Amino acid sequence: MATNDALKKKTEDKQCAKDARVCVPNPHLKKMKDDILYHFALETSTHDFPALFGDIKFVCVGGSPSRMKTFITYIAELLDIGNPGYDYPNICAGTDRYAMYKAGPVLSVSHGMGIPSIAIMLHELIKLLYHAKCSNVTIIRIGTSGGIGLTPGSVVITKQAVDPTFKPQFEQIILGKSVIRSTYLDEKLTEDLMECAKELDQFNTVIGNTLCTLDFYEGQARLDGAICTYTEEEKMQYLKEAHKTGVRNIEMESSVFAAMCNLSGLKGAVVCVTLLNRLEGDQISTPHDVLKEYQTRPQKLVGQLIKNHLGKK
Amino acid sequence: MATNDALKKKTEDKQCAKDARVCVPNPHLKKMKDDILYHFALETSTHDFPALFGDIKFVCVGGSPSRMKTFITYIAELLDIGNPGYDYPNICAGTDRYAMYKAGPVLSVSHGMGIPSIAIMLHELIKLLYHAKCSNVTIIRIGTSGGIGLTPGSVVITKQAVDPTFKPQFEQIILGKSVIRSTYLDEKLTEDLMECAKELDQFNTVIGNTLCTLDFYEGQARLDGAICTYTEEEKMQYLKEAHKTGVRNIEMESSVFAAMCNLSGLKGAVVCVTLLNRLEGDQISTPHDVLKEYQTRPQKLVGQLIKNHLGKK
Repeated sequence: MATNDALKKKTEDKQCAKDARVCVPNPHLKKMKDDILYHFALETSTHDFPALFGDIKFVCVGGSPSRMKTFITYIAELLDIGNPGYDYPNICAGTDRYAMYKAGPVLSVSHGMGIPSIAIMLHELIKLLYHAKCSNVTIIRIGTSGGIGLTPGSVVITKQAVDPTFKPQFEQIILGKSVIRSTYLDEKLTEDLMECAKELDQFNTVIGNTLCTLDFYEGQARLDGAICTYTEEEKMQYLKEAHKTGVRNIEMESSVFAAMCNLSGLKGAVVCVTLLNRLEGDQISTPHDVLKEYQTRPQKLVGQLIKNHLGKK
Repeated sequence: MATNDALKKKTEDKQCAKDARVCVPNPHLKKMKDDILYHFALETSTHDFPALFGDIKFVCVGGSPSRMKTFITYIAELLDIGNPGYDYPNICAGTDRYAMYKAGPVLSVSHGMGIPSIAIMLHELIKLLYHAKCSNVTIIRIGTSGGIGLTPGSVVITKQAVDPTFKPQFEQIILGKSVIRSTYLDEKLTEDLMECAKELDQFNTVIGNTLCTLDFYEGQARLDGAICTYTEEEKMQYLKEAHKTGVRNIEMESSVFAAMCNLSGLKGAVVCVTLLNRLEGDQISTPHDVLKEYQTRPQKLVGQLIKNHLGKK
């Protein structure tokens, strides 16, 4: 029986790779009659996933729900799909945990802040794509970050997501034990995005490593949190060491994003704008309208990529 | 100079403890002219913190923004303050990261899901209370959780928040190095809450340890995530081991909440309802209206505590 199961799994995995279908590396899932995606307020027993989501080719994710709504309106206009001025409904209206919008082959989903928050969303998103029988899906995180040694407003395309010791790995705790996972991101996709940045030629864009932390204040060596136990010199030493190892920005989701893309066969990329240069300060004091323009930059870059890709077909 | 600073700090700490004022264990903060609480969209230079927030005695925090709005309406009616039917404005309307509502001495704030998300909120909340010169503040997390060996709908008041190896500690990574912090919660407050539960006598309430994880699926031994590498037997063994050490529920914020309360002199408690019994399953399949009623239980319990406390004055 165990051998048969292993054989069956191997055949399925091969088929999965051949079709470029989204994989769920979870043998238990196949035994479940229905699946409740609790944090999306969607269920396979009440929603027709292939009909609703089967055509998805691009998924863009970001922290803020309102930004992800702005993005779906932007991408629909750019791709000339849907009606101008259409108010896209939130597919996850039954919950306030995440927001989800769809325009043609593009899905836009919010993920909140931090590794645990994006991980819950990704578990349910990967299952959604699997139940919908999606294939050849590209997923891109478009976010905000703190830059290291870059002019604010610069965009960083992540080469590798690194942990607080600058290693390209993500530690997942399973049944109380540590499991280390790779945080490799799709090299070809990263290069394609850099090509799009050159095509656009509207803002500074670099490829660099991204430091992924579990905390915004102490975890990112800030001096302006409620708690701080280190000196300014120690802070600067840490940030300069990060820069020396190739880190160009800091955020809070890239490592688990990369690890989960790898495990489920999704081509993934992380594109974040830098809101400040952390070598020059900690507080985000740039005027609101300037920050708002910065936040459109990853959207423009990813919009260009999607437009190019769909135009080629 | 260093000695003077140390002396000054010691005097301030003593004063802080004497007044029961909210402390910020961060010497850098005192050197800052203004403070931008970025994720609240509030600034000391544009908002009068003592006038806006100086009277706060109770802060209630929870994951979902809509639940925290429901709570402020509920507590205002219970305490008979404000006008019935009043639509409380979101104090953090300038951002969609968190939502914040205030009624008299009670503040209600959402924190999203997971340790990093609640930690950002707590850093900025503690600074807000400090800038507002608040004293004698009690903070209670009212949330949802998975129960272990309890009838769904039971409420757990946390004795100790424990990590995935069941130790009462929280690991904070600072400048790439691990720092272990205590997850002790206020014993007297826990007992007072248990007294309120007996007074109310409306639902099963227990005091127990709370397992705090960085992930909802693999981190909580679920079999229904997109990724699963263990058997049902291994899952059950882990959950039973947790139960044996005194764990009665699992959630994703209590450990950093306890650690940060300890460091800033806030009396803290965690009150979570259990949505399911994890020894019997992983999916949250209880009907929506039943779940909704469950979620009012921590609110009722904490409402009773606040009412008793303010009534005594």
